[in-house]
Amino acid sequence: MKLELVKKHRIFDGSMEYYRHYSQVNQSAMSFAIFLPPQAETRKVPVLYWLSGLTCTEDNFMTKAGAQRVAAELGIAIVAMDTSPRDNGIEGEDDSYDFGSGASFYLNATIEPWSKNYNMYDYIVTELPGIIELNFNVSNKKSISGHSMGGHGALIIALRNPRSYQSVSVFSPIVAPTQNGWGCKAFSGYLGEDQSVWRQYDSCELVKIATERLPLLVDQGTADEYLDDYLQPGKLIEVCEQYNHPLNLRMQPGYDHSYFFISTFIEEHLRYHAGYL
Amino acid sequence: MKLELVKKHRIFDGSMEYYRHYSQVNQSAMSFAIFLPPQAETRKVPVLYWLSGLTCTEDNFMTKAGAQRVAAELGIAIVAMDTSPRDNGIEGEDDSYDFGSGASFYLNATIEPWSKNYNMYDYIVTELPGIIELNFNVSNKKSISGHSMGGHGALIIALRNPRSYQSVSVFSPIVAPTQNGWGCKAFSGYLGEDQSVWRQYDSCELVKIATERLPLLVDQGTADEYLDDYLQPGKLIEVCEQYNHPLNLRMQPGYDHSYFFISTFIEEHLRYHAGYL
Repeated sequence: MKLELVKKHRIFDGSMEYYRHYSQVNQSAMSFAIFLPPQAETRKVPVLYWLSGLTCTEDNFMTKAGAQRVAAELGIAIVAMDTSPRDNGIEGEDDSYDFGSGASFYLNATIEPWSKNYNMYDYIVTELPGIIELNFNVSNKKSISGHSMGGHGALIIALRNPRSYQSVSVFSPIVAPTQNGWGCKAFSGYLGEDQSVWRQYDSCELVKIATERLPLLVDQGTADEYLDDYLQPGKLIEVCEQYNHPLNLRMQPGYDHSYFFISTFIEEHLRYHAGYL
Repeated sequence: MKLELVKKHRIFDGSMEYYRHYSQVNQSAMSFAIFLPPQAETRKVPVLYWLSGLTCTEDNFMTKAGAQRVAAELGIAIVAMDTSPRDNGIEGEDDSYDFGSGASFYLNATIEPWSKNYNMYDYIVTELPGIIELNFNVSNKKSISGHSMGGHGALIIALRNPRSYQSVSVFSPIVAPTQNGWGCKAFSGYLGEDQSVWRQYDSCELVKIATERLPLLVDQGTADEYLDDYLQPGKLIEVCEQYNHPLNLRMQPGYDHSYFFISTFIEEHLRYHAGYL
């Protein structure tokens, strides 16, 4: 496993590093960015994994969220990975903003031509943490967070692997992808028409069968342009109430779907995770 | 003077707004972004003008510097303008990253074909503050800051108008444009070959004739890839010592020319300006 350093910048006395490597599970080159706080020079630090939304790369969160200041104070590394494999010559991979490149939906694809390269679920749950823990001065304590499609990803991964993550928090997540346009397009394209497979990647369905009660912290802007059609936080509230799953869902007045929203509340999320890490 | 609202986002309980308007002095459409802190809902707040570097627009600082958190706390509005007029059909305006579009160097061009549209000096000193003070709940107290080419711009504007600005601070400025490749290319293109005109836009020359002692705060990364060839902070140190001009130039170990550097120290700059505003 060879990591290629793409670039490196000093920030808040820590180190912002961008890498490319070959992913076994995706059979593809993958890119990720890691922020190492100054504490990582002298001890193993815990890691927050960040999953971005549609069209993003590993760069958006690192340049726009303003997270490094607080992570440097708290001694938390942050890893943000690209939102899909890219440039694998799959027909149509670059045709849509909401399918293919930049739109993996963090699942393991089961049907051709996506199943070879689109295995982001395994990449994030297994392969990437292995690489991070082998190559950087980090512990195996980890938490997970994300935005929009990445909020969906963080929730499904945490709900399915509650003992692997100390905590989970998300912004503006797609909580019920089996019930809206984005999710149905992605799931039918990557998974085919078997709805039982779809349910493995739907937070509202996973809450129903959760065996552990990992608390969910969710921030959602009330002025979010995707609120009613794609994000549908009411569905998560409903199922968490019904199944007695701990949820702190905060509707933030006037905030939209942008990184301006994330930057406003990321400090609270980081301090929340630090309490568990 | 009609302002066209392009977009608006809530951030840190304040408002991030993007506008376009027709500039009289540039005879061109211009774009700017303004962050209004929550205090602006109830009282007039002072303004920090931010001038960005080569290739930037009004957006880079607002999305990457993480300044709004502290500005919201301190009650300071921030205005960032585009780095040049654009799309005026001037032959060659989009040919270089360091001349024409995105590279105004914040001067008043004197030669054809640039003199009609490239009057960013007057735009920033006079026209834009007038527009801001007329249309937003801000006072006439203002400070100025910038990065790289924008650090150059902030310094020359503050040195030539010391009573118009409460304070000035810059990151990685081009302090002696008459003595390096970027500056000589821009000045000969916009100003012709009369070196006495060039000197009006060179910080090191302006320190020599400054009638007021406005203190200069400068942060410069030691790992900046443009340090020796284009930024040359030693020249500013030398002239400030010789002419007894107050300068606090801090070499920041390991930091480069990126917004990761700016984001690390912008809080200190904002608190510095707040002490004067």
